[in-house]
Amino acid sequence: MQEIIRKLREFAAERDWDQFHTPKNLAMALSVEVGELLEHFQWLTAEESRELDPETLRKVREEIGDIQLYLARLADQLGISPVEAARDKLEINRKKYPVDKARGKATKLT
Amino acid sequence: MQEIIRKLREFAAERDWDQFHTPKNLAMALSVEVGELLEHFQWLTAEESRELDPETLRKVREEIGDIQLYLARLADQLGISPVEAARDKLEINRKKYPVDKARGKATKLT
Amino acid sequence: MQEIIRKLREFAAERDWDQFHTPKNLAMALSVEVGELLEHFQWLTAEESRELDPETLRKVREEIGDIQLYLARLADQLGISPVEAARDKLEINRKKYPVDKARGKATKLT
Amino acid sequence: MQEIIRKLREFAAERDWDQFHTPKNLAMALSVEVGELLEHFQWLTAEESRELDPETLRKVREEIGDIQLYLARLADQLGISPVEAARDKLEINRKKYPVDKARGKATKLT
Repeated sequence: MQEIIRKLREFAAERDWDQFHTPKNLAMALSVEVGELLEHFQWLTAEESRELDPETLRKVREEIGDIQLYLARLADQLGISPVEAARDKLEINRKKYPVDKARGKATKLT
Repeated sequence: MQEIIRKLREFAAERDWDQFHTPKNLAMALSVEVGELLEHFQWLTAEESRELDPETLRKVREEIGDIQLYLARLADQLGISPVEAARDKLEINRKKYPVDKARGKATKLT
Repeated sequence: MQEIIRKLREFAAERDWDQFHTPKNLAMALSVEVGELLEHFQWLTAEESRELDPETLRKVREEIGDIQLYLARLADQLGISPVEAARDKLEINRKKYPVDKARGKATKLT
Repeated sequence: MQEIIRKLREFAAERDWDQFHTPKNLAMALSVEVGELLEHFQWLTAEESRELDPETLRKVREEIGDIQLYLARLADQLGISPVEAARDKLEINRKKYPVDKARGKATKLT
């Protein structure tokens, strides 16, 4: 992940894109990419979404790549490590959803 | 990241949440978290979004954590590594946006 | 709808909110509200989503109201009528998805 | 709006699409369309978003049309009138954001 973040800095610097990469714009761009991801799933049944055909899976993998890139870039612009933020949030979630209370209930992962 | 993915599997298994964690539902959940992230930025100017106050930054960090968790979990359910997907997509983006053509133009990062 | 648009102008003017209601910000706000809508549906099965309990239905109705308000406000700021835009788009969709080809296939409504 | 809702019922019935138009799927589709709308605004400054060039404005109008169509369709599947839901929500917002307290503060429209 550190290597990706470093490469993203280079990628933006070479193209003079730092001017566009405000946290506000990057959050929007992240949202656009998530919309593209959802497009692949919108009409599928729950079961179908578990068994994507190879072509759809390839496209979904690209969208996941895009989302990860924008998330890493946004976090970096704010001085945040996305992996550490995830680790800390998972600990919060453990306490928020104790096993005995959350078991088998359709509630949020996070 | 591998450790987070492993912990997320454990987290879901303990709570019997695999039944809810279809790729379709996880994509929706990811979208919900991105909406919560956007909420912090919606009325800010570009400049303000670069200088969040400590309390907003703390909340934004939690949202980034949530997004990273759902993204990792979704990718895992599809047999995808989010970091490898990002690395591969960055290479595609390099070719899609050559430095000499993309320089200084407000176009997509990815 | 015209009455709502007129009231929204008044609502914003009274609060001196026109400064925040740029099309960019309103598009973001719309996205935030759609995220809040999705939150109610994310873990439901397709069948459950057709039969919401009264309390969830009440909240979903409020989110639909919010989305309609922001959509009308955004359209108004761009000099667009949302109802006419919808009518025109529906005609485009009729041609894009001819009955004989689209019948029974999980494709986009619009 | 009533005419649009009636035409959407016909449109879906002719194509045998009611099976796909669960509230859950329609909420996702709405989110996808909002993502397409955001794509036009993501790298623009606030000022640029107020002065779209004619081609972008045309595309944005189509996206607004799509969003209005899905919103109307979703509301209809839940037995809700989007215009009445908006009217009621605007009254709630009036109370939530009294003029004297909300004036000039970057807070939510709704």
